[in-house]
This record gives sequence, structure tokens and C-alpha cells, in this order.
Amino acid sequence: MKKIVVIGGGTGNFVVLSGLKQYKVDLSAIVSMADDGGSTGMLRDELGVLPPGDVRQCLVALSNSSRLMRSLMNYRFENGGLEGHNFGNLLLSALEKVTGSFEKAVEEVGKILSIEGKVIPVTANQVRLHMILEDGTLLRGECEILLAKRSLLGFKSIYLEPYPKADHHALDEIRNADLIIFGPGGLYTSLIPNLLVEGVSEALRETKATKVFVMNLINKKVQTPGFKASHYLKEVSKFIGRDIFGYIIINSGKPSEELIKAYAAEGELIENDLEEDPRVMATELLNSELKEVQKGDVLTRNLIRHDSHKLAKELMSIVDNL
Amino acid sequence: MKKIVVIGGGTGNFVVLSGLKQYKVDLSAIVSMADDGGSTGMLRDELGVLPPGDVRQCLVALSNSSRLMRSLMNYRFENGGLEGHNFGNLLLSALEKVTGSFEKAVEEVGKILSIEGKVIPVTANQVRLHMILEDGTLLRGECEILLAKRSLLGFKSIYLEPYPKADHHALDEIRNADLIIFGPGGLYTSLIPNLLVEGVSEALRETKATKVFVMNLINKKVQTPGFKASHYLKEVSKFIGRDIFGYIIINSGKPSEELIKAYAAEGELIENDLEEDPRVMATELLNSELKEVQKGDVLTRNLIRHDSHKLAKELMSIVDNL
Repeated sequence: MKKIVVIGGGTGNFVVLSGLKQYKVDLSAIVSMADDGGSTGMLRDELGVLPPGDVRQCLVALSNSSRLMRSLMNYRFENGGLEGHNFGNLLLSALEKVTGSFEKAVEEVGKILSIEGKVIPVTANQVRLHMILEDGTLLRGECEILLAKRSLLGFKSIYLEPYPKADHHALDEIRNADLIIFGPGGLYTSLIPNLLVEGVSEALRETKATKVFVMNLINKKVQTPGFKASHYLKEVSKFIGRDIFGYIIINSGKPSEELIKAYAAEGELIENDLEEDPRVMATELLNSELKEVQKGDVLTRNLIRHDSHKLAKELMSIVDNL
Repeated sequence: MKKIVVIGGGTGNFVVLSGLKQYKVDLSAIVSMADDGGSTGMLRDELGVLPPGDVRQCLVALSNSSRLMRSLMNYRFENGGLEGHNFGNLLLSALEKVTGSFEKAVEEVGKILSIEGKVIPVTANQVRLHMILEDGTLLRGECEILLAKRSLLGFKSIYLEPYPKADHHALDEIRNADLIIFGPGGLYTSLIPNLLVEGVSEALRETKATKVFVMNLINKKVQTPGFKASHYLKEVSKFIGRDIFGYIIINSGKPSEELIKAYAAEGELIENDLEEDPRVMATELLNSELKEVQKGDVLTRNLIRHDSHKLAKELMSIVDNL
């Protein structure tokens, strides 16, 4: 069975894992630990726990338990002091408190949800994402970066504070993988934070695994305004140390004008300016079933999203040729 | 296998169930639904759910899952907006929200905890315990009654509002039981609230089961000041409609002077004035292992408590002669 490692944040990893779970492959998810918004942010601030939100999404994606258990994990309390808290996050945080270890908590929730595969936080250290803008302004935390009103273009530095070591399981997974899938996910808030952990970029450069970059569908205003596919590739490659990707998967489908309009305030479609690149696999990957806006951990989530089945089919065409 | 039904609140049922679980018997717990203090009270007020606390304690008592899962169920958040909330209560409430039914939530948690036996809320109705004192003061809710500064002696009325129907499963259990164990538990706050549910007293009068009354160890000041064993028996019998008990188990052990002194502000030992009654089984039943004060849902819990093993042994001597 081919060993596939997915690297990213919660929402992007969820889409990739949900699709690939339908195939006979050995799946691991390496998850960014920089999230500090919404329910996750409250838990970090109030209980001093590690961020559970992104890990939770990966666990749910790999779960073989009932639909009810998955709904429970995603259930969000709507009133009182619990308002905004996600039940799965509370479960992970309570287990971290009871066991004294987030790793153990993830393992236990994995058992409760009968997951197939592994979910590995990229680091066991308690970190915050920091960004210093051109004018010297320091943005502290993913949430502050996500909500920044000024463009992040031309920022001076992005780093995790304190500088964390990678979980050695995460590095082992990267080293032993047949295929590594990087993305989709927020470039500076979900993807690059994995590369800011000591040891990860090195392992990515050294592993013999085939690497695939799954391009995002849309740019977020302020975050990555006007970015084209080549910008994403270049930026990620800079943090890895070189361009390691053997394949680049890019959506070629067009959402309805209506959807694009609804999105205009938030961002625009990413242009594929890599058409000449022989590594590019351009195909229609849009989820046409999403109708209503869902409230997420921090911001309204994308209505323009990858279809997990279409994406998995594309990824499996690579796996089948390994 | 003999069918044993335990009736009470959370703490008392927990002791009885934990002990009997070690024997080959068919156990069911019928649980009062009048609790509205602490974490349970907040959840009722803020989410409009049914009270999870007492049910949770019974589920944990019957659980065959790991010590870790049981610790998780009893874990209490200590900071922030979650402060005071018990994880097991949150699980039951979230499942009630997701499934739309408290009964279903109890069933699902039973599966998660691999319980042996059944836990049945006495009613599926949303009720509050009410008490009208002699001077006309209305106390609303178990919590208000527990915290009352004036003696409850000579109260005019105690009732559940609105008047609830019993869960038919609860009535079936009572009708089909071989042995019914009533108590221990707060007389007005955990025991009698079961008898205020339509159908329960009638079923208790009609069932062919042998009935045992397990006497409390101490009186709570304000609640049952100066009550002797006969007062408890008389009061419970009044609400059932007649004295139905075939056995009355009363502790004959004496706690240390130190413990009694530590308790003086809260209450005093219950005197056994039923020594002539042939139904009384008086024996040493004290838990000698409890050392430190635990914080409970509402008030500091008893340090003077039943030993679940000693109590179960006594109860099994009855079961063996059925």
C-alpha cells in the first residue's frame, strides 16, 4: 500500500483526506499548529492547551465512525459561556488536560473515532505565528494575520515564536512517504507555518517521496492579493529551500459568475500562469454541491472549494504511476 | 440473572452501582431529573438541555471503559468561559443537541463508555423542583432548595413544575425488577423528586420486586435537621403512598471524632431509631479511604460516605435470598 502524507492546515487537509480515504492507501496528515482563532484560540488562551481545531478536522476526515459521531465532533455550542466552542475541540483539550499530552489526546480521539491513518501535529511545542510587516508592525498570531487590514505583501519576516522543533513522527512520515501532498490551504496561515518548524523543510528536501503541490482556488484579499499560481509555487519553494515538486495540480474549472461575484469582497480566482510548466495537471476540480455559507472557526469559509472526489481521482492517477 | 433497579440521584446511585457492578446482576439506574446546580444548571439555563450531571455519574459507574475515559467524563474545566463545566456533561448536552433527544444521547454515551446495564432518566420532560415553605416562600429549583438558609421543616408543598410523566422505560424497569434499591441520596433533592413524577409511586406500590431502603449517613443542616432513620422512612413512604420496604440498610459504624467535627457545620450523623424494626440490617458501611475534600456539582461532597463494596455485599446478601 502506498504511503501518502498530506501537509497543511485543517480545512485543506480535510478535503484531501476525505477524498483519498475512499482508496486503498496508507494516509498520514501533518498538521500546522499555528491556529489561534475562534474556539481554538479561546481554548489556547484560557486553558493553555495546544490548538485542537485543525487536528480535529483531520481526525474527522479519517474517521470510520458513525455520521452521528462526526456530527458531534463538529458540533458548535450556540449559547452562553460555551458559545462558539466546538465539541471536538473541547474533547481534544479535555483529553490533553487529563492525559497531560496533546499527542496522547490525538491518539485517544483517533480510537474513539476509529480513524484509519495517522494525524500528527507538526510540533508538540506551544507556538504562535508572528509576522513583521514592511513598516515594522508586528502581527501576533494567525488570527491577527488573517484579520489584518493591510496587505501582507512585502512583509519582512514570518516565524513561529518560540522556534519549535518538529515532532519526530512528522519527520519520519515525510522521510518514509511515497507521495507527499502539500496544500491546499492558506498560504501564510496554514501551509508555510509547517515549514517554519525546525527540520520540516530539510526533511522535504531530502525525502525520496514524489511531491505534489495542490494549488488553492482563490486568493484572499490582503493575504495574497493578485497572486498567480507561480507566486504560490515560488513562495512555498523559498521556505522549503528549493522547488521540490514533481506535480502541480491546478483547477481549470470556472465557478458561476454569481459565486465569483459573491466572493469579490473576499478575494478572486487564482490565475494559472504555469501553463507552460510540464508538471502542471490542470483539470476541473470544483465542488458544485456547496450552496450555503458555513460559519467556520475564524472567517466565513470558502464556498468555492475543491471537490474531494475529483481531487482524489487526480491524486490517485499520480499514485498509480509511482 | 437477578434484575436490580436502583433509584436516586447521581452521587448515591454511583456508590450503589459501582459496588453492585462487581457482581453478576442485571443493573438499571433510574435517575432524578431535578438537578439544576453547577455545570448542569448552566447547561440547562444556557442551552435548554435536560440535566446531564446525575445521569453522567450513573454512566461512569456502569462503564467498562478505560480509567482514562472515566477520568475524562469527570474532568472539570478550570478556567475561562468553560470554568466549572464538566466534560461528561458537555458530551451529553452536545449529543442531545445533535440527536435532538436526551434519551438517544444517554444511549450513545453508554456505547462510548461500554456500559453494562441501563441508565434511565425518570422523565423526559424538562422540569424544575419547587418547594413552598410554611411562610409561603417559593423556592425554585434544586439549587435554591439546597442553598436555602431557612429550615425546610414544615414546608407546605414540594412538586415538579410542570407535572411530568414518567419515562415508560423507567416504569417497565420498576415493574420487572427482582430488587429495587431506593437511596441513598438527598431526601428532598434526589430521592423524593423521583416520586413526584406521575406513575412512579404507583409502579413502586404495584411491583412484585423486593424493595430495600438504603439510609443516608448524615443529615444536612437546613434540609433534614435532626432527622432520624424513622423520619426518612416515614417521609419517603408518604410520597410512595405506603411503606413498601422489605429491608432497611443502616450504617452502624462510627466515623472518627475528627471527621464528625469537620462535618458539624454541615450536618450530623443520622440516628438509627429503628432498632426494633425486624427489617433493619445494621452494619458498618463507612468508606474509610476518603481523605480530601472533593468539589462537587453544587456543594462540597460528603467525606462521610458509604463504602461501595461493603454496601454491595450487604445488598447481595438480600439478592442471594430472593
